[in-house]
Amino acid sequence: MKAHIITIGDEILIGQIVDTNSAYISKALNAIGVSVYQISSVQDDKDHILESLAFAKANSDIIIVTGGLGPTKDDITKSTFCEYFDDELVFNQEVLDHVEYLFEKYVKKPLLESNKTQALVPSKATILKNKYGTAPGMWMEQDGKVFISMPGVPHEMKGLMEYEVLPRLKEQFHLPYILHKTLLTYGMGESAIAQRIEAFENELPSEIKLAYLPSLGRVRLRLSTSGAIKEDVDAAMEVQLQKLVPLVADVFVGYEENGPLELLIGKALTTKRKTLSIAESCTGGSVVQRFASNAGASGYLVGSTVTYATRSKIEVLGVDKALIDAHSVVSAEVAEAMAVQVQKMYNTDYAITTTGNAGPTKGDSDVAVGTVYIGIATPEGSNAYHFMMGNHRKRVIEKTVNKALELLHEEISKN
Amino acid sequence: MKAHIITIGDEILIGQIVDTNSAYISKALNAIGVSVYQISSVQDDKDHILESLAFAKANSDIIIVTGGLGPTKDDITKSTFCEYFDDELVFNQEVLDHVEYLFEKYVKKPLLESNKTQALVPSKATILKNKYGTAPGMWMEQDGKVFISMPGVPHEMKGLMEYEVLPRLKEQFHLPYILHKTLLTYGMGESAIAQRIEAFENELPSEIKLAYLPSLGRVRLRLSTSGAIKEDVDAAMEVQLQKLVPLVADVFVGYEENGPLELLIGKALTTKRKTLSIAESCTGGSVVQRFASNAGASGYLVGSTVTYATRSKIEVLGVDKALIDAHSVVSAEVAEAMAVQVQKMYNTDYAITTTGNAGPTKGDSDVAVGTVYIGIATPEGSNAYHFMMGNHRKRVIEKTVNKALELLHEEISKN
Repeated sequence: MKAHIITIGDEILIGQIVDTNSAYISKALNAIGVSVYQISSVQDDKDHILESLAFAKANSDIIIVTGGLGPTKDDITKSTFCEYFDDELVFNQEVLDHVEYLFEKYVKKPLLESNKTQALVPSKATILKNKYGTAPGMWMEQDGKVFISMPGVPHEMKGLMEYEVLPRLKEQFHLPYILHKTLLTYGMGESAIAQRIEAFENELPSEIKLAYLPSLGRVRLRLSTSGAIKEDVDAAMEVQLQKLVPLVADVFVGYEENGPLELLIGKALTTKRKTLSIAESCTGGSVVQRFASNAGASGYLVGSTVTYATRSKIEVLGVDKALIDAHSVVSAEVAEAMAVQVQKMYNTDYAITTTGNAGPTKGDSDVAVGTVYIGIATPEGSNAYHFMMGNHRKRVIEKTVNKALELLHEEISKN
Repeated sequence: MKAHIITIGDEILIGQIVDTNSAYISKALNAIGVSVYQISSVQDDKDHILESLAFAKANSDIIIVTGGLGPTKDDITKSTFCEYFDDELVFNQEVLDHVEYLFEKYVKKPLLESNKTQALVPSKATILKNKYGTAPGMWMEQDGKVFISMPGVPHEMKGLMEYEVLPRLKEQFHLPYILHKTLLTYGMGESAIAQRIEAFENELPSEIKLAYLPSLGRVRLRLSTSGAIKEDVDAAMEVQLQKLVPLVADVFVGYEENGPLELLIGKALTTKRKTLSIAESCTGGSVVQRFASNAGASGYLVGSTVTYATRSKIEVLGVDKALIDAHSVVSAEVAEAMAVQVQKMYNTDYAITTTGNAGPTKGDSDVAVGTVYIGIATPEGSNAYHFMMGNHRKRVIEKTVNKALELLHEEISKN
């Protein structure tokens, strides 16, 4: 089964928003055994949408459309579906009841005429209930192909996928099992890894595909395969993992499918009943934000401090002014002192800190743009590490966060 | 001039990464007068790429391809281009020199055979220098249409766009001027705004398009137009803005093109020589991270504290334990006390704080999931505000950040 995702909206084509819906839908479809053949982002234009529906139907079995279902004049998906399916809009009482319920419960304002038009739906469509919004989803069929329309608002789309689209697809089609396993590696380049695992790659059976995904200080190695019987697929994958993991053992930190590194760290800390505090300078909250965005962070994350100004490092964190004067605010000594101080301040087992210059200009220190120190305090002691992270502000920040997580993960894994 | 962007990579179609390159390219093309007709994400598969090139050529003048240029076996863009253009790969000394330079300067490891293959390029291609990586960009032409290939690594692609692709497109084509103006509004729903500006929308000249972009507590209103003469386009837009802005004056906070709200706040603080500190609980660093990701934040952001655990609010921030016991850690009283305390701790003019329960389960407080208090301290005094932000963790966090920025912006604009 192949799917084609069509995301509608000028805001995508002028670069005003990043289309995150497609990635969510693709991942969810893969998880139930549907491959995505193509993703097309098209304009809020009737002819363009009609052309895309025809093109998608020619190469896929399932066509999933998002966007263009709002109550305003720039939303034209429903009328375009009517033209494509030679259909007309009819009033649906169930949809209106739901819209009225949402307004009464959440909006607490009277229903507008434009909101009522949400209850007009193509007569041939099966209506998919949108728990989180007023625009219903639609399911239509033509020549054995399924066409699904959902709103573009991400959380409404996700609710529809979870409660309506995925269960119906699983029921209607006999789907294979698709399996991806992605090895997270840190500290070795793409071509160096490729050279090291060349023999493995050459011997890989044709039904298992290997891909390299390099980004900012790490390379992800993905093995992908699929088949009718889950047990066979799992077993075939396991055979390859047993060969591959030992080849990259020194740079391997875990499987991406188990969650990102901050989640692995969080789980380890929770299991070991250990706590964490953070003090950030150049990363400005990006480290703590990675932990706090996950549920369960309150189980190990006691607190964090962003000491952006030098005086905050002294007054709030209690780093010795003489130490800063002697070594510069961007130094191994200060990174380590920050770790010791924040560990004490929040009374935690582990602490991780960053100090550096992310650019574009030199800040409170004379060090070169891209200079970064990461400090770590553990129950056993403290340490600091030096890195050069390039000269692009956002990349310096992201690389530093990745490196800090990697070092912390290593420390926690020791005990 | 119409462009078609093709992003190649199975990682996009299985939802392993979000394609952010397309948004960047679209925005950059719009800025020089090129409209994007469609974005297509396709598999690492020769036939599929060939089909996409033909489809894109049929409806666009400029075809921009990213991805598939790495040194590993899953990278097939160059060989596919050779097939499409009936061409062959030839050795290019200039590219090899650049690869050798990068390895010497940054990688500090000997060149591998696979890295040398980067110097093999289609004979008909004009080579575009990739300042930040080993895979060169390529510019090819066929029947008056331009085909551009760039690596998928975001910062390499961005460098190629800036230094090679955009200057060449501007030189080769006579391009119109495209103008978008996006009004950021907070606190009113999409359909309510649409009703209020209905007469304006009906009278809008056909060459100016209006779009509504609702998301988590705010609606963006975008006016888009284009023309041959910049001055005429600007004047026509100004006429409409003069009509539209007064209609939404009570919910209008600024133009998106001037940067996001945190940038507007940062500029205002810098101009007024005022400083900011932040104390976050439920948002876990997401507020400070918004400020710190922008250059220049060190000019006004003194520091911030994430007091995730209740004991941190007492021990680190100095919030009175009796106050927490009397009102709960998630309360207006605590949000306001946090603001007063963090303002004092970092000695700043303004302070903003968050405390709430982002879910999924109840934390250190008994309040319902989604309950949020935002505290603000200014040179004149302090205050706190109560909100219900729904029950989805990441959305609660994002809505709270948006609301905190909105309230802070309002306060700063008063003085």
